[in-house]
Amino acid sequence: MTKAFIAGSGTTAFGSFPDRTGRDMFAEAGLAALDDAGLTSADVDEVFYGNFVGTLSERQGHQGPLVAEALGTTAPARRVESACASSGVAIRDAVRAVRAGDADVVVAGGMERMSNMGTAGATDGLARAADDLFEVRAGVTFPAAYALLARAYFDAYGGDRTDLAHVAVKNHENALVNDHAHLRQEITVDDVLEAPEIAAPLGLYDACPISDGAAAVVLCSPSYAAEHGLDSGVAITGSGHGGDTMALQDRQSLAKTPGTREAAEAAYDDAGITPDEVGIAEVHDCFTIAEVLALEGLGLYSYGEALGAARRGETRRDGALPVNLSGGLKAKGHPVGATGAAQIAAVRTLLEGTHPQSDAVDDDVTVGLAHNAGGTVASATVHVLEVVA
Amino acid sequence: MTKAFIAGSGTTAFGSFPDRTGRDMFAEAGLAALDDAGLTSADVDEVFYGNFVGTLSERQGHQGPLVAEALGTTAPARRVESACASSGVAIRDAVRAVRAGDADVVVAGGMERMSNMGTAGATDGLARAADDLFEVRAGVTFPAAYALLARAYFDAYGGDRTDLAHVAVKNHENALVNDHAHLRQEITVDDVLEAPEIAAPLGLYDACPISDGAAAVVLCSPSYAAEHGLDSGVAITGSGHGGDTMALQDRQSLAKTPGTREAAEAAYDDAGITPDEVGIAEVHDCFTIAEVLALEGLGLYSYGEALGAARRGETRRDGALPVNLSGGLKAKGHPVGATGAAQIAAVRTLLEGTHPQSDAVDDDVTVGLAHNAGGTVASATVHVLEVVA
Repeated sequence: MTKAFIAGSGTTAFGSFPDRTGRDMFAEAGLAALDDAGLTSADVDEVFYGNFVGTLSERQGHQGPLVAEALGTTAPARRVESACASSGVAIRDAVRAVRAGDADVVVAGGMERMSNMGTAGATDGLARAADDLFEVRAGVTFPAAYALLARAYFDAYGGDRTDLAHVAVKNHENALVNDHAHLRQEITVDDVLEAPEIAAPLGLYDACPISDGAAAVVLCSPSYAAEHGLDSGVAITGSGHGGDTMALQDRQSLAKTPGTREAAEAAYDDAGITPDEVGIAEVHDCFTIAEVLALEGLGLYSYGEALGAARRGETRRDGALPVNLSGGLKAKGHPVGATGAAQIAAVRTLLEGTHPQSDAVDDDVTVGLAHNAGGTVASATVHVLEVVA
Repeated sequence: MTKAFIAGSGTTAFGSFPDRTGRDMFAEAGLAALDDAGLTSADVDEVFYGNFVGTLSERQGHQGPLVAEALGTTAPARRVESACASSGVAIRDAVRAVRAGDADVVVAGGMERMSNMGTAGATDGLARAADDLFEVRAGVTFPAAYALLARAYFDAYGGDRTDLAHVAVKNHENALVNDHAHLRQEITVDDVLEAPEIAAPLGLYDACPISDGAAAVVLCSPSYAAEHGLDSGVAITGSGHGGDTMALQDRQSLAKTPGTREAAEAAYDDAGITPDEVGIAEVHDCFTIAEVLALEGLGLYSYGEALGAARRGETRRDGALPVNLSGGLKAKGHPVGATGAAQIAAVRTLLEGTHPQSDAVDDDVTVGLAHNAGGTVASATVHVLEVVA
């Protein structure tokens, strides 16, 4: 399919920055991405911006034009919202604009600011990613929802908390060298198992943190990229989007995520690849069980086979398929609206050799994947990135 | 440019429905649009959904998959937010998906539910369409912001409140036969001038109401439309999107809306038409002055010339260029996230002869325009619709 060239990428540090504004953080990421591309805000044709709860955390809607202005442009801009998949979907729709020939240079990304909401406020805000009438009012929080998925998975395929703990240990280990990561702290399997339980079978270290941060990429059309010498490096060659019922009660099984499968099949088809060609992956590990479900939904593992992948070392940095070399949501952090774009920035820099973990990417790896999910995977995007020169 | 065929359209009644849910209203509009097209939810490839303050009014984010499910599908869905232009932008991005060949059948539209928020809550919610740091905290509400625009216009070009009153009288008159309109009440120029002042020079009847409601259209790709006999009626032939600074303080002039001009020029260029070919228009008249600014931004009138258009009768139903035959936001109502889609549904049915006001459309009129604006036109979309058979 038509390539969308990634001419530049940028992210802020992820962490707790209650005194920074959203526009300030997005401007930092977006201007870094433009600078990385050798472009300026005057070159930008459109802005696609993902954000989840800015209406609550900053009393700010209509953030598209606001963040465009922070980048120094009045180019047409919109906010795309799909809970934790907001910037994954923003990038998908940006890829379309570039492929359709409607725009030559697009800044696409996202931002979230939640630490200023306090823990209760952030929990309340995040709950809006679930069905308010049929889930939230019944007491479902996201740790509880993912605990239900973990229980269903264990029931279907076996396994236990120790298997999940290896996912957390791996992703914390990967984040140690990433100076933009929220949690740079080595942990052991025992640390995970002994941490306070938050929703059985999940404990505190099975969950990602609540983070502030922003991420952005600059996408270019093939013709613009060719004219301006930007047609090398890494391009998005496949894009897919999947859906599922919003409420868990309406699903046939809680042990699988068909929204991820739908997005993955569409992205592989779009890129003309098969899952076995994927050499590295950044997947949506908001909880440890989510990484397992993602790897199976993506077809990188058969159903029931991914739980032991981290324990067996297969998805570790020296394994056959390194997963979440950035540290993942689990340790890099999860500024909700920024996550999808941050994943794509990570895969791009990992493949280009400019990421702190690039030395873990084998020289023959030319295909990477980014998987972003909203809620309990009622929405998901998958992007395939390939080295093009 | 490639056509996006409008195979069906549907709207709920607009009004005060505090006991209805957003998903219920959007399902009514979307299913009506699918039924109108002779299609079902099983035919839907994607959903593009506009909404502004559901995070506040229904404690509900992640509404894309939620409303898709209400339509009976788990097709990929996203929410697009650009304040009062949310569904205008949703439809723009849906048009791209259809043109890019990525989707054959798309439901695009929007919904807003605000009457359950109370007047203070709704005012607070609407304020999020302005810059929280530099406008809202300084006391700017939307009536006040549009009052500033009216004062700047009067300063630049002359005119007074009586000229604006004719816009309100016209749009109320147009809504009388529209059984989906929120305000079906004949008013006189004296009624407008004697109504309570809300922000000088604007009075109560210069403002649109706060409405609940939903609207949707079904868009089809050219190939799908041809295969399924849906390539007649009306198609979107031009789409444009414009931006401007968020805060009024950063504009060079408050008497013009360059965001509208940018969107209009892009849409005309896309459709290959000139403004003088437009036979009817639905424009974003959240306040009476907004209709005047829109007509000039759209190039349908020269700058400084549109203020007297309603008074002179030119934009009335029997005038040379009927504007807001549906009643406009002013009288049909303004459920924020639904408005852009409702305008497109109105232009389509007006051109096809199935709108209550279709008898006001001359037989030789084949081109209509829909103009949707966010905030004080920091974002705007323009769509050109043409009769294709």
